[in-house]
Amino acid sequence: MKITLKDNKIIDVTKGQTVAQVASSISESLCKSALIGLVDDKPVDLDYVLNRDCNLQVLTIKDSLGQKAFWHTATHILAQACTKLFKNAKLATGPATENGFFYDIEFENSITQEDLSKIENEMAKIVKADYAIKRTEVSRADALEQFKKSGQKYKVLLIDDIPKGEAISLYTQGDFVDLCEGPHLPRTGLVKHFKLTQLAGAYFKGDQSQKMLTRIYGIAYEKKQDLEQYLTNLEEAKKRDHQKLGRELGIFSTVECVGQGLPLFAPNGAKILQTLIRWVEDEEERRGYVLTRTPIMAKSDLYKISGHWDKYRDGMLVLGDSDSNYLAMRPMTCPFQFFIYKNGLHSYRDLPIRYAETSTLMRNEDSGEMHGLIRLKQFTLSDGHIICTPQQMEAEFKNAVELAYYLLDTLGLRQDVTFRFGKHDPNNLSKYIDNPTMWQTAETKMKEMLDALNLKYCETVGDAAFYGPKLDIQIRNVYGKEDTLITVQIDFALPERFDMEYTDADGIKKRPIVIHRSSLGCYERTLALLIEKYAGAFPTWLCPKQVIVMSLTDRTAMDADVIQKKLLSIGVRAVSDNRSEKIGYKIREAQLEKVPYMLIIGDKEKEQGVVAVRDRRQGDLGTMSFSHFEQKIVEEIKNKTI
Amino acid sequence: MKITLKDNKIIDVTKGQTVAQVASSISESLCKSALIGLVDDKPVDLDYVLNRDCNLQVLTIKDSLGQKAFWHTATHILAQACTKLFKNAKLATGPATENGFFYDIEFENSITQEDLSKIENEMAKIVKADYAIKRTEVSRADALEQFKKSGQKYKVLLIDDIPKGEAISLYTQGDFVDLCEGPHLPRTGLVKHFKLTQLAGAYFKGDQSQKMLTRIYGIAYEKKQDLEQYLTNLEEAKKRDHQKLGRELGIFSTVECVGQGLPLFAPNGAKILQTLIRWVEDEEERRGYVLTRTPIMAKSDLYKISGHWDKYRDGMLVLGDSDSNYLAMRPMTCPFQFFIYKNGLHSYRDLPIRYAETSTLMRNEDSGEMHGLIRLKQFTLSDGHIICTPQQMEAEFKNAVELAYYLLDTLGLRQDVTFRFGKHDPNNLSKYIDNPTMWQTAETKMKEMLDALNLKYCETVGDAAFYGPKLDIQIRNVYGKEDTLITVQIDFALPERFDMEYTDADGIKKRPIVIHRSSLGCYERTLALLIEKYAGAFPTWLCPKQVIVMSLTDRTAMDADVIQKKLLSIGVRAVSDNRSEKIGYKIREAQLEKVPYMLIIGDKEKEQGVVAVRDRRQGDLGTMSFSHFEQKIVEEIKNKTI
Repeated sequence: MKITLKDNKIIDVTKGQTVAQVASSISESLCKSALIGLVDDKPVDLDYVLNRDCNLQVLTIKDSLGQKAFWHTATHILAQACTKLFKNAKLATGPATENGFFYDIEFENSITQEDLSKIENEMAKIVKADYAIKRTEVSRADALEQFKKSGQKYKVLLIDDIPKGEAISLYTQGDFVDLCEGPHLPRTGLVKHFKLTQLAGAYFKGDQSQKMLTRIYGIAYEKKQDLEQYLTNLEEAKKRDHQKLGRELGIFSTVECVGQGLPLFAPNGAKILQTLIRWVEDEEERRGYVLTRTPIMAKSDLYKISGHWDKYRDGMLVLGDSDSNYLAMRPMTCPFQFFIYKNGLHSYRDLPIRYAETSTLMRNEDSGEMHGLIRLKQFTLSDGHIICTPQQMEAEFKNAVELAYYLLDTLGLRQDVTFRFGKHDPNNLSKYIDNPTMWQTAETKMKEMLDALNLKYCETVGDAAFYGPKLDIQIRNVYGKEDTLITVQIDFALPERFDMEYTDADGIKKRPIVIHRSSLGCYERTLALLIEKYAGAFPTWLCPKQVIVMSLTDRTAMDADVIQKKLLSIGVRAVSDNRSEKIGYKIREAQLEKVPYMLIIGDKEKEQGVVAVRDRRQGDLGTMSFSHFEQKIVEEIKNKTI
Repeated sequence: MKITLKDNKIIDVTKGQTVAQVASSISESLCKSALIGLVDDKPVDLDYVLNRDCNLQVLTIKDSLGQKAFWHTATHILAQACTKLFKNAKLATGPATENGFFYDIEFENSITQEDLSKIENEMAKIVKADYAIKRTEVSRADALEQFKKSGQKYKVLLIDDIPKGEAISLYTQGDFVDLCEGPHLPRTGLVKHFKLTQLAGAYFKGDQSQKMLTRIYGIAYEKKQDLEQYLTNLEEAKKRDHQKLGRELGIFSTVECVGQGLPLFAPNGAKILQTLIRWVEDEEERRGYVLTRTPIMAKSDLYKISGHWDKYRDGMLVLGDSDSNYLAMRPMTCPFQFFIYKNGLHSYRDLPIRYAETSTLMRNEDSGEMHGLIRLKQFTLSDGHIICTPQQMEAEFKNAVELAYYLLDTLGLRQDVTFRFGKHDPNNLSKYIDNPTMWQTAETKMKEMLDALNLKYCETVGDAAFYGPKLDIQIRNVYGKEDTLITVQIDFALPERFDMEYTDADGIKKRPIVIHRSSLGCYERTLALLIEKYAGAFPTWLCPKQVIVMSLTDRTAMDADVIQKKLLSIGVRAVSDNRSEKIGYKIREAQLEKVPYMLIIGDKEKEQGVVAVRDRRQGDLGTMSFSHFEQKIVEEIKNKTI
């Protein structure tokens, strides 16, 4: 039996050996650090038996799938500990995530932060016991019987969700059995260093009509120092967490009776968003975009043309109770801008037409998916669609990427992003508009354009939009979780569906190509990332308050007001603080608000006609003439200095 | 029996006389022009019998209720003509409106513009026949039987809607009978001059799930010259109609598959809206408002606190199918801004707080109510709420009105508005928050403030918001239909419901007062009014294209481009037209687009370093240096010259 290893080396192995045995034959150290195997791209346990020629990788914690299996086993240990400690704890789902693991559990009585250390102690016992972890495949009937008997009602529901004909596997460690696809580590003893980090609420399957469960988050590593490093980073990250800072800095709040994923932007947040939106709209205008303003909902008829109704309906918020009467909140702007295009006749001379819109979009996100300002039910996208001839596509694609670069550069985010080429999944064609030739053309063309741009990107199968391939510009939040910030997509499919046309130089009507693109992406998400990036101390041009003018004593209160008004009149967002408080107190408050500049006006400054300037980062800058300060801050705002 | 007349004169009249008899006893000419009576504020027919002491006004076509009765009788004549001409025409409802009348009818085959003259001919016959119009009251059973027999299914449905116990009245003229509350003129012969003006579609009761009916609009007058004047005005109005011009000028379009009341703003419209919105936001900021940005939907829980769920639910678009799961699109911004207020503690020193938001709102308008950009399902309001102490209310109210004045003045709309003081209706208390003392206080205070402002206003009972009295700034569109443009409301009720507080100077927690106000009202509606006011030739600062630079020959094409780019760089929206077309053709096109300035660059201008300037209204302004033109247009834009 021939096994092809990662380095393309082919080894000859006796049929019936396990992954672990092969690993040990490769090297003792690999065998020691091996966690799972990857056989023909399918992750498997180490005791998986190899019976045919295949590709094999032996994965350790350094591989992302190995890391995931490690965390997945950790969450089983968490679940085992909970069922031991809490009578009638009902287990729902417990996956590994990008940054650790969680388990959703229904407890009879709600548990507290203090319970977490009890659970950790119980987990330590399970690790110490070093139970072997064994996979068994069972019939649906047996699985159902077993979980019904043990009262694990959510597992029963989950079994019902498994498609008929698919294998049902259980993993057992000690007296604990869980329904699980696997793979897992061979023994509980490997999960030496772990920590439960957080408690939260989550609906079963993210469905708000279901009961709210308790979600316990945790992290685990092989090495103690890795865990400690993670926890230190986590503490640092928490200080920058946009949800914490966003509330402290008067940027946004959430309100239970308004609902999840629907933040309320207070004046500081609204001012930053206004500043960002105007900047992007103006920059787009400068680059030849024209603005549109289209409705945030439409009859289902529109989405039937676009394909959203067929491919994306679960992602939409829909009103109404009958086919003739449905109104759906829009998840994307494209069909609306297409109808603006279709409202006129177009010649090749008119193209490219670049439509931009500051677009309110709504998506029916699962409650478990929503997070701060990162993932919302309602959000604002710098959305746009370029309608061009095939000959123009490459240049327009490049322009769209360059606009994104410019915006990212200005905000200081450029070095934080990575690129992802999202392709369709030929094994899951029902998700996409069915046109293999179109996909072939579009993805080939996309790859050429990406390569021409010298972008370092990864390719991910299954991440295309339903109508075409995507370039996603990805960014990680302060906890390391990755999300899409900006997207540029090419589309050969919807122009056909919407019967979009232009008359070419030869007088023949032809189909244009559409580039779907966001320039700064979703403003709320960008704001979250900026809060975390700058720990709330935004570049001056973005600050809701740019200057606080402080009187040193009551005698200089009026002078402070005069200076504040002068600043306002030249477009600097200045406030004055003339309270009869000690100057140290005023400064401390301004520092907490992260206001870029404090101008302090005492008798001496008044007399000399200068201002004492304090920078939020560098502290005291000494005194300078007002016109000098004015020039400095106006330049800083104009240049959008980071 | 004592009858009090309009001038408070009391006359003594024998019991059992009709309104007409009393009118004739007052004066022969009054009797001749009398159309209906008003007995104790209730409109009645002229043959209404007076049996007790009462107030009586005899109304003629000069009174708005008299005019309405005239139109109402005209629409009955229309209906009679239709049932005569079209077998199986099913009548739905046919009211008088502010500007004429209409009748909604289901025809077996759709009718055309040409059918209207046939109907007019038939109406003329009915007028000539001069049928007496008679009211009879019948039992519900008889009414139902009669209309079932005649196959008038909509009338049967309308009878079902009449509350039990209420009288059911029919009006008969010749062989035609209609279900109608009345009153009507005494004879069909009075409706001498009439015209059917328009055909449209309308759902029965405005309900989209019902069948689409044909709506026939018409107008009628006593005097021929009044009708002719009206029709001339109508022709003029049609030229200015914002729906016609809005489409021609690339401002907006509507699309069947998107839906009614959901216009798509094309680049020209979006640019005007962006300009208006930025102007209002900046002016509000200058006047001490702070911006918010809140979600466009919320769980029903929020609206239960505000009272919208109880008093306004029919006006909202609601998603979801169960109480725990409802999400409603917001019809107003108030509860959201209240929660921003509630997110912090407030001292009397912080007040007034003036929140502003460019707010997307959605209302569940009946399809028959929606009209162009005037009344929409989704619209954008310059919404805001001032939270203040009782002592600050009067000054803040005045500030809100002054902001409205400033905006109206700038747009040239000030002279077109009227004022309406909307009070609650003590006879329909279920529409309002139930607190008689609060209503007494609020309306008294409101009247004082309005009088202090020397506003000339009319008082209308039943036009209050459910939480408090309103000052509505009203405006008429080009057809004379009145709508609210701006509103300023005082509210003593919602601060209580939302438990809003501030700590007063005495350390005691008190309730603030809220002023709900819009500054420019609904942007879409304002845009509609501006289109009609200026017949599309907007003031320069609002024009999507402010200048077209035209080359006279191909030799000056590059020079035109250079000038266009110079204009762009100083913030003037300029385009160039370098097509090899005749200059007359280019000018004609620019005139149709109503672009304020055309700059024409020929060899002579190029040589002399000047531009030939053409104004869309005054025509040729001769040549001038570019810097002179630059100064002129920059001033004009900066000053927002009308």
